[in-house]
Amino acid sequence: MIKVAINGYGTIGKRVADAVAAQEDMEIIGVSKTRPSSEALVANKRGYPLYIADISKKPAFEAAGIKVAGTVEEMIAACDVVVDATPGGIGKNNRALYEKAGKKAIWQGGEDHEVAGFSFNSSCNYADAIGRQFARVVSCNTTGLCRIINAVDKAFGVKKVRATMVRRGADPGDPKRGPVDAIVLNPVTIPSHHGPDVQTVLPHINIVTTALVVPTTFMHMHILSMDLKKKATKQEIVDLINAHPRIGLIRHGLGITSTAEIKEYASDLLRPRSDLWESCIFEDSISVSEDNELYLFQAIHQEADVVVESVDAIRALVGDVKDADKSIAMTNKALKFEAI
Amino acid sequence: MIKVAINGYGTIGKRVADAVAAQEDMEIIGVSKTRPSSEALVANKRGYPLYIADISKKPAFEAAGIKVAGTVEEMIAACDVVVDATPGGIGKNNRALYEKAGKKAIWQGGEDHEVAGFSFNSSCNYADAIGRQFARVVSCNTTGLCRIINAVDKAFGVKKVRATMVRRGADPGDPKRGPVDAIVLNPVTIPSHHGPDVQTVLPHINIVTTALVVPTTFMHMHILSMDLKKKATKQEIVDLINAHPRIGLIRHGLGITSTAEIKEYASDLLRPRSDLWESCIFEDSISVSEDNELYLFQAIHQEADVVVESVDAIRALVGDVKDADKSIAMTNKALKFEAI
Amino acid sequence: MIKVAINGYGTIGKRVADAVAAQEDMEIIGVSKTRPSSEALVANKRGYPLYIADISKKPAFEAAGIKVAGTVEEMIAACDVVVDATPGGIGKNNRALYEKAGKKAIWQGGEDHEVAGFSFNSSCNYADAIGRQFARVVSCNTTGLCRIINAVDKAFGVKKVRATMVRRGADPGDPKRGPVDAIVLNPVTIPSHHGPDVQTVLPHINIVTTALVVPTTFMHMHILSMDLKKKATKQEIVDLINAHPRIGLIRHGLGITSTAEIKEYASDLLRPRSDLWESCIFEDSISVSEDNELYLFQAIHQEADVVVESVDAIRALVGDVKDADKSIAMTNKALKFEAI
Amino acid sequence: MIKVAINGYGTIGKRVADAVAAQEDMEIIGVSKTRPSSEALVANKRGYPLYIADISKKPAFEAAGIKVAGTVEEMIAACDVVVDATPGGIGKNNRALYEKAGKKAIWQGGEDHEVAGFSFNSSCNYADAIGRQFARVVSCNTTGLCRIINAVDKAFGVKKVRATMVRRGADPGDPKRGPVDAIVLNPVTIPSHHGPDVQTVLPHINIVTTALVVPTTFMHMHILSMDLKKKATKQEIVDLINAHPRIGLIRHGLGITSTAEIKEYASDLLRPRSDLWESCIFEDSISVSEDNELYLFQAIHQEADVVVESVDAIRALVGDVKDADKSIAMTNKALKFEAI
Repeated sequence: MIKVAINGYGTIGKRVADAVAAQEDMEIIGVSKTRPSSEALVANKRGYPLYIADISKKPAFEAAGIKVAGTVEEMIAACDVVVDATPGGIGKNNRALYEKAGKKAIWQGGEDHEVAGFSFNSSCNYADAIGRQFARVVSCNTTGLCRIINAVDKAFGVKKVRATMVRRGADPGDPKRGPVDAIVLNPVTIPSHHGPDVQTVLPHINIVTTALVVPTTFMHMHILSMDLKKKATKQEIVDLINAHPRIGLIRHGLGITSTAEIKEYASDLLRPRSDLWESCIFEDSISVSEDNELYLFQAIHQEADVVVESVDAIRALVGDVKDADKSIAMTNKALKFEAI
Repeated sequence: MIKVAINGYGTIGKRVADAVAAQEDMEIIGVSKTRPSSEALVANKRGYPLYIADISKKPAFEAAGIKVAGTVEEMIAACDVVVDATPGGIGKNNRALYEKAGKKAIWQGGEDHEVAGFSFNSSCNYADAIGRQFARVVSCNTTGLCRIINAVDKAFGVKKVRATMVRRGADPGDPKRGPVDAIVLNPVTIPSHHGPDVQTVLPHINIVTTALVVPTTFMHMHILSMDLKKKATKQEIVDLINAHPRIGLIRHGLGITSTAEIKEYASDLLRPRSDLWESCIFEDSISVSEDNELYLFQAIHQEADVVVESVDAIRALVGDVKDADKSIAMTNKALKFEAI
Repeated sequence: MIKVAINGYGTIGKRVADAVAAQEDMEIIGVSKTRPSSEALVANKRGYPLYIADISKKPAFEAAGIKVAGTVEEMIAACDVVVDATPGGIGKNNRALYEKAGKKAIWQGGEDHEVAGFSFNSSCNYADAIGRQFARVVSCNTTGLCRIINAVDKAFGVKKVRATMVRRGADPGDPKRGPVDAIVLNPVTIPSHHGPDVQTVLPHINIVTTALVVPTTFMHMHILSMDLKKKATKQEIVDLINAHPRIGLIRHGLGITSTAEIKEYASDLLRPRSDLWESCIFEDSISVSEDNELYLFQAIHQEADVVVESVDAIRALVGDVKDADKSIAMTNKALKFEAI
Repeated sequence: MIKVAINGYGTIGKRVADAVAAQEDMEIIGVSKTRPSSEALVANKRGYPLYIADISKKPAFEAAGIKVAGTVEEMIAACDVVVDATPGGIGKNNRALYEKAGKKAIWQGGEDHEVAGFSFNSSCNYADAIGRQFARVVSCNTTGLCRIINAVDKAFGVKKVRATMVRRGADPGDPKRGPVDAIVLNPVTIPSHHGPDVQTVLPHINIVTTALVVPTTFMHMHILSMDLKKKATKQEIVDLINAHPRIGLIRHGLGITSTAEIKEYASDLLRPRSDLWESCIFEDSISVSEDNELYLFQAIHQEADVVVESVDAIRALVGDVKDADKSIAMTNKALKFEAI
């Protein structure tokens, strides 16, 4: 059993914890939190030992009815691998801690490539991650881009990718972030950083990206175009999606044309937390122009798609599964992750 | 086993179906849908026989990969009781159908009191419903008001209730309804209809209500004040809430001060569809003024609180459970409904 | 003086009325409304004679303190040209009325090209409109696309245009339309109809468009890419924008990166109704890639950009100004329309 | 002429500047800004000398094409009175500066009562402000509450006020603040601070307030109830509103039932920046119950209602107008502020 610690039991961390706990070859030995909160209480309910950075806050946790197991250092000492899911930009400060403890570590996409020196996506470069000490699972948007671009590139060759990311403003549980009534260019400059981030995984891809933020809470929407080298048909693209273990097809005929309706569907399927670990490509949107440019819309659940990648990253760094497809299948099966 | 048909497998109907299917003394013998959709597909996945009003549309369902079991009339003929969860205002047109078939029926709060001649809330008037042919489960807002008002009235006596309902604009899965950036007075006149609706269940309560709509999707928020007859303390109100099987306490110290954070908590608890069957009263908001007026905020999950009431209503009309507390306990237990 | 009637005094109609009233060579002889409303009251305050379709409703108007001048037919009979600003899809039904009365007419972009047989944009095809009986001013989005595409095409040649329209969900004064919390693909298919609509004005342009709707009220946002024939620099594009009478530059250094901040700026400039008659291109976004693809963001005020085009269209159909630049200058000057 | 400096040329400051500039007995001698922005550019366009706190930033302003007149200290030295419209909580730090310069000063409602020791509302306590060195204009919500409560109290006597404030989440020009999809209790405790704030102006009023925040940008909505001492009729309340120079009546029959529609109406009236200096009470909402409790909805434009109060406050502190009604009439007339 791989002993996994989750440093930062928040939006991503709590999902990775549940996904790890569901795997047959892994166990959660601890999760961490800085303040008493409903999430900390849930960690207790799940039976995950809860560690805190500042032990002087233990009484505050106990006053809220939350049990504390010890310090973050103790948690790190007890694990084989840390998944660092602290807020973006904070994680890099923990690298020294993991190095000192001689532990393997996995960061999330809120950190730069340099924190780990290796950026990971299960479908693209699992083999390159095997045995490394450090890896960074790329961000939700980059994960979604890598999955489909790599699949199309392998099948048809991609000359140039153009992608616009229409990003949700706040996560569903966040009552503070905006905007309320604005479309925000973020960044206002073109191209955005997402293109270079894709290239940390797929260095040979020619890609230009733009990004903006809108007042929604659930899923980013990507508008993608790819100039293909080899002629493709819509059906070939559909087949390629259906064959991918982490890309779902929003089927024609079910009346789904928005993020709200995808969420409702995920909720009806009783997915835990309505999570969509897969990229969701709209069948109706797929089209290939006469000059062989592929267009499509895909929706990306910002809280969930990196969760399954993080589980695979653990296996690549620490486990003895050498094959990406095998790890992906193990991860998916343990989550009862079936095609949407 | 009570044979239950769900006429209208939408936002409420699909939840009632799952709640009924979980009960030991009930079974779903069919659900109905008018158009192919992701919900219809989910009915198939759950194993609920799917009936349609217009059998000529069967090929359209089959083209979308959805199996059809027959007509709505066939479904009605096969059941002991129908839960009518068709859109508000449509349900009354079905009364003749149920009468003709000699079936018991339960409507939702989108219909007027007159459709059934009896308005139901488990905690308030279960006994009066026993053996009736027809009942109407009052709306989500009225259900939430009845629960707390009745509890406080029994314990302390209520002279006058003032309630403002800040209502969500659209359900989470609805991409069409607004508003986008407006506070809408609905109605602009004072009082709103919610007060008289409470009086269909609790006729002796003196209540004035106001209502407005805001651009959110999850939960209505109630601002409640009650002039009490007998002096109460905050702790007594907290105790009363903790003792109620359908009112939850958003506990002090967990950092929850918004609908978004309640939803996140329900999601973390892995409630199906993040459903909150209970009214959610904020412990921090409860206060009793020197002139003995009780104030509190409560949040009401518009898609969920009537679901458990509907299950009890089935038992009251058709079953042999004569005691409200027993039915409520059965319903809650089958859903693994534990205090939030 | 050109006698102008405005059939449909709503979001667009009331703006066209004010813009017409400000011109030296035009006057408003009437505006129409179907129901008493604050807009009808404002027509009275402005001194625009108010006509109604159904004269039997005159008492309802008078009860709300609104004066009525007569019927729509009387208004049509008295004018030289009608601007039809009735809701999208309604305008085409009025064509027979205008034909019978022998009047010139201008429709808005909510109608199809066929309603007039000629689609108009001042900068692109003013000369072709001279003396026609009918014209359609293309929609706000198409107007915004035509302005910049035509300008770039004339200067550098455009091989292919890709445009994504991130559309506002509801107008600021509309409390009903949504969505509340969803990104809606509208349409879910690619390409959208906007490309062919551009081609009604610029038939030779190769363009692929996509469109989605988000929960905002003010301005659509366009993400534009153009493959250029002739090499261009960012400065050349900036110069071209600065030289255009209907395209504004959101200058670097003012901290504006969202629709909210543009609106605030227009409001601070005391523009009537905060209207932005110009397309607003973000200077910071303009970039030309090594393979000579131009990228930029532009924001389009959905309520305003077609207003100035409609004034020019009146002049082209009815007046004696044969030169587009002259009409544009007259229109702009009368509105004190200075560079943003 | 009263020489007025505006320290903080933002949402409130820029409006006060324009309102002051429109008065016959006042002039703007300077406004201040900390960073180059579109607002700073607008100050230049208006001809208001622009002063900055940190003169080392002058080159940054000039690079953005914005002229700087000098330092904030120089501006203070040159004025008779400062209106401090710096962000809430910052203003109190400037008190020493104004004291040292021996200048009169007016703060906004983001500061506590103690900053000035006197809280101001034109209709309630103008006379008490005459000749003072310091005053605080109460916040937009408190201003709106004071106006109607004082008017009703004078006419009918008020035993107890209950008010709920449904607050906008962000100002229209603010692309950062949220929430996106949440109703936020702010504060979660009852009562909120608004009641005591009203008592800084009207100490004898018995008032309990609650407050929450929703995802809108324009206007707070108040739900008000007042237990009256003397019996009132709806018509008497309407008359009282019509007689008040700073309360507007949203008339029955115009179809306005939301903040969006009020905004549209203000925009159609060509109010500068669509500003509503008056409280807006919905005629349709006014009702008096049998037990003599008055209910009503009022909407408060958070950016504007304090602007006219601030102008009166200047006159009270510095000018020679001793009569509130006279100052209010002067202020309103200069702004061409007519009944909505």
